[in-house]
Amino acid sequence: MKISGVPYRTIWLNQDGWSVTVIDQTVLPFKLETKTLTAMADAAAAIKQMIVRGAPLIGVTAAYGVCLQMRVDASDKALENAYHTLMETRPTAVNLRWALDEMMAALRIVPQGDRTQIAYARAAKMADDDVETNRRIGVAGLALIEEAAKKRNGQTVRVLTHCNAGWLGCVDWGTALAPLYLAHDKGIPLHVWVDETRPRNQGAALTAFELSGHGIPHAVLVDNAGGHYMQHGEVDLCIVGADRVTAAGDACNKIGTYLKALAARDNGVPFYVAVPSSTIDWTMSDGVKEIPIEERSPREVTDLTGMTADGRLETIRVANPGSLARNPGFDVTPARLVTKLITERGVADASREALLKLFPERRA
Amino acid sequence: MKISGVPYRTIWLNQDGWSVTVIDQTVLPFKLETKTLTAMADAAAAIKQMIVRGAPLIGVTAAYGVCLQMRVDASDKALENAYHTLMETRPTAVNLRWALDEMMAALRIVPQGDRTQIAYARAAKMADDDVETNRRIGVAGLALIEEAAKKRNGQTVRVLTHCNAGWLGCVDWGTALAPLYLAHDKGIPLHVWVDETRPRNQGAALTAFELSGHGIPHAVLVDNAGGHYMQHGEVDLCIVGADRVTAAGDACNKIGTYLKALAARDNGVPFYVAVPSSTIDWTMSDGVKEIPIEERSPREVTDLTGMTADGRLETIRVANPGSLARNPGFDVTPARLVTKLITERGVADASREALLKLFPERRA
Repeated sequence: MKISGVPYRTIWLNQDGWSVTVIDQTVLPFKLETKTLTAMADAAAAIKQMIVRGAPLIGVTAAYGVCLQMRVDASDKALENAYHTLMETRPTAVNLRWALDEMMAALRIVPQGDRTQIAYARAAKMADDDVETNRRIGVAGLALIEEAAKKRNGQTVRVLTHCNAGWLGCVDWGTALAPLYLAHDKGIPLHVWVDETRPRNQGAALTAFELSGHGIPHAVLVDNAGGHYMQHGEVDLCIVGADRVTAAGDACNKIGTYLKALAARDNGVPFYVAVPSSTIDWTMSDGVKEIPIEERSPREVTDLTGMTADGRLETIRVANPGSLARNPGFDVTPARLVTKLITERGVADASREALLKLFPERRA
Repeated sequence: MKISGVPYRTIWLNQDGWSVTVIDQTVLPFKLETKTLTAMADAAAAIKQMIVRGAPLIGVTAAYGVCLQMRVDASDKALENAYHTLMETRPTAVNLRWALDEMMAALRIVPQGDRTQIAYARAAKMADDDVETNRRIGVAGLALIEEAAKKRNGQTVRVLTHCNAGWLGCVDWGTALAPLYLAHDKGIPLHVWVDETRPRNQGAALTAFELSGHGIPHAVLVDNAGGHYMQHGEVDLCIVGADRVTAAGDACNKIGTYLKALAARDNGVPFYVAVPSSTIDWTMSDGVKEIPIEERSPREVTDLTGMTADGRLETIRVANPGSLARNPGFDVTPARLVTKLITERGVADASREALLKLFPERRA
């Protein structure tokens, strides 16, 4: 997508044909800086230091990390070492494991002399596949935006989103935001309500940065405000991403999503969840009971980092110093509150039957 | 209530019999400092600079401002001047006007020589009346906490609150927190989930400070998290204050209250609203349609103030610099989501009929 009108991906191969550049997401939204990765250790550091973030982008960065290793040493030992070093950067990231396993499967069986070329080809395909999956999610979701636009008779379509399910966590497009980019590019007038998404403020920081860069009108809201706007008819639809969706259509997403889904239902506002099918966990059927919720550091609640008036990044404490905090990272929106799931294969009701119609190969 | 075990009010007359001291709420929760007011201008400045805040406390501070003026000049002209100077400090505060009108009514008709004594007596009564009203709200609400405690069979009662409806905005006790102080003092084990309450973080800063000072166990949450805890059976009841309640029982309170009320209903958690009867607006019946919602500065959303590791108060930007923000200060929780209203006359269903039973003098 665009930053100040210039098209970007979050990660790209340079003209030299081997080095890789990423956007440094640790200084967003305050600075646009890039980092060029010229060795496997650079890729590992980029993942570990959260210079790159978001499951798909982490996977692709790790894949390119393997490429950078193969270039200088394509031995079995170097391959093993790259695999383990990169795997340890974010131990709980499922997508990271998948990407590294893919690279390993592609490289282990081929002669050392071919590994560099095959590695770069596989990493490039992984990046392109991610772009294509998200573009398809965008196309599927666009139909829902167009439906809303028809109801609005050409007036601005007002969309609420929570957290950042945009292109910065992927290679391009994003999930929840992909339909918005397509709609905007097609000339449908949009206004996006951006939940700031405490505690890490990915909405106010990243989603707002994305929309701003692409020229989509929006306003940042505290997470408390969306219900009020829905109550007053100022939201036409909600669209969010998800970290995991059960086979029954329950959506586990950033903490607070459930509250917005409740407000959407109370006010007759459609609530859409956009996900690649890799996010669907076919083994689970009761999201509230079965999905484990990560408890994160209380410091994320009590302290905040941002930019001072004179341009320094500073961390401040905002909560009473004597008080404890609790910090569940995600919550589960039951399928009954989800109007539609949007996937790369199309749109489905949030139910096992509807999902199986889109993914018939999953029928037992 | 107590701070580190020592009982406090937010405002008190000193032993000299004329000067008045207040807690400086601009540096809470990071520092406990007091300011002594020795002239009417000090009282005006305290209100204007938000050294004191909360409708009842603002009213009492203004009343003492009149006293301080009478001490040095009890002429009609000085009285008029005090009235207008104090009125201009926070022009939209209804309680401020009420308090100043009360003082004016009591003083205008008496000889100048009696005014100082009468002013101090009236201001002291105003403070004591506020304490008594809130204590009665506490007693009424205590019955609901005891009911919850019975259901919990002696296990900790888990209460969620939003914003600060505590003693710091009043003279003592508070509204929503009054029942909790009484319950705690009676030995009922409590755990309070404190919504941080963005954008101004009155929960994380003031409610947490209050509970901490009084020794009530609690944890600060981002506003996004309460729904998750309700979904998992970790909240026994919610209790909040309100800025205005319609005759039909709709409650206008700090932005985000509505979302918690929705989550409470979705999970069968009682949702209580504690208010002095002066908050009931008998002229309104449809809160969502009729109550005007103040739109506050977007800077409250995009910027935050807190304490750095080395003890300085610093303001940082947390939102994308290019983005707009919107900041509605309040929302309306419809009566259908309110389990009970708690007033100084007792507990009532959130309906016109039930309210009129408590306040029969309001029947047309």
